[in-house]
Amino acid sequence: MKYPAAIQNLIEKLSTLPSVGPKTAERYVFYLLKQQKEKLADLATALKELQEKTTVCRTCLAISETDPCSICTDKTRRTGLLCVVENTQDLAALEATRQYDGYYFVLGGLINTINEVKPEDLNIKKLIDRIKTGEIKEIILALNFTLEGETTALYLTKILKDHVKITRLAKGLPAGSNLEYADELTLGSALKNRNEINKV
Amino acid sequence: MKYPAAIQNLIEKLSTLPSVGPKTAERYVFYLLKQQKEKLADLATALKELQEKTTVCRTCLAISETDPCSICTDKTRRTGLLCVVENTQDLAALEATRQYDGYYFVLGGLINTINEVKPEDLNIKKLIDRIKTGEIKEIILALNFTLEGETTALYLTKILKDHVKITRLAKGLPAGSNLEYADELTLGSALKNRNEINKV
Repeated sequence: MKYPAAIQNLIEKLSTLPSVGPKTAERYVFYLLKQQKEKLADLATALKELQEKTTVCRTCLAISETDPCSICTDKTRRTGLLCVVENTQDLAALEATRQYDGYYFVLGGLINTINEVKPEDLNIKKLIDRIKTGEIKEIILALNFTLEGETTALYLTKILKDHVKITRLAKGLPAGSNLEYADELTLGSALKNRNEINKV
Repeated sequence: MKYPAAIQNLIEKLSTLPSVGPKTAERYVFYLLKQQKEKLADLATALKELQEKTTVCRTCLAISETDPCSICTDKTRRTGLLCVVENTQDLAALEATRQYDGYYFVLGGLINTINEVKPEDLNIKKLIDRIKTGEIKEIILALNFTLEGETTALYLTKILKDHVKITRLAKGLPAGSNLEYADELTLGSALKNRNEINKV
């Protein structure tokens, strides 16, 4: 016996989610089967509204509720400071630190030679246009410390270094970490970028 | 910044799925955001139809497309043989082996003293009614080899042993396993229930 078509159908659809296989999807479906009808209808509505009620901010290119988004229209933020991130999730992670009060720019990806993501696939032209306005004094590259992130940072530095001051996030030991288990690159960076205690 | 309400809403809803936390839900949502509008609408429809287009078979209590289900109405199956399973997923797993041609009965759970699932919370009364018809010659207890499964098997054996022949699935080494890593209980059972080679 196969499952009833309605179950099989939903299993297949949920299996397309990232890192969800048929077994996990099956678990989700049988969990959902036990829920109240209203809860399922709510979930269906939320899915439909996901794209309808979100847009992309024309200024920073983040996914947002309004265009322009609430950050780009916030006049209390520090002008001249632009933080370049890969995507909206990274933007949200930085906002959650409450340590940054400048503006953002979403690249929409990272250069990836293996998956053939080229610079022209990213929002780099728009970033250059924004820098050309002369408003931006410093851009902070808040990109992953991965091969793709480093490649993108290198590329951006090369094309932008003559126009604007470029900084990167500090590389060092994460909070709660053990020196013993840190890799050499991280520990090396932490040593090189050490801070004077009375300055911190 | 929080995410737009539509995103936040869906993250919260998806976080209620089994072993899905806010970070996983976030990943699902940003994946879904990139999908075509039709795909999302299809998923929403599949969710809504999940409960509408499924029912519970009155005979075996499995979740099915029709009531009675396609197995219970299949006259080519062996009468007299009833396989007792915990839920519809286990039924599907057994069907997938293509080794069984009797009928099924879904208990709807296992006795669990910690979570206070008592025998009266399961479909045991209905199982007894079915056995009382005298049609069933043998019931196969196809329950998990866990504390809950063993408790339920013990309970069912106690109340049914005078009315019907009761068998259980074989306990032994799983396919592709290493003797070296097998636990004592499994290896002990495999030894005790060894098969004569020319009989297999």
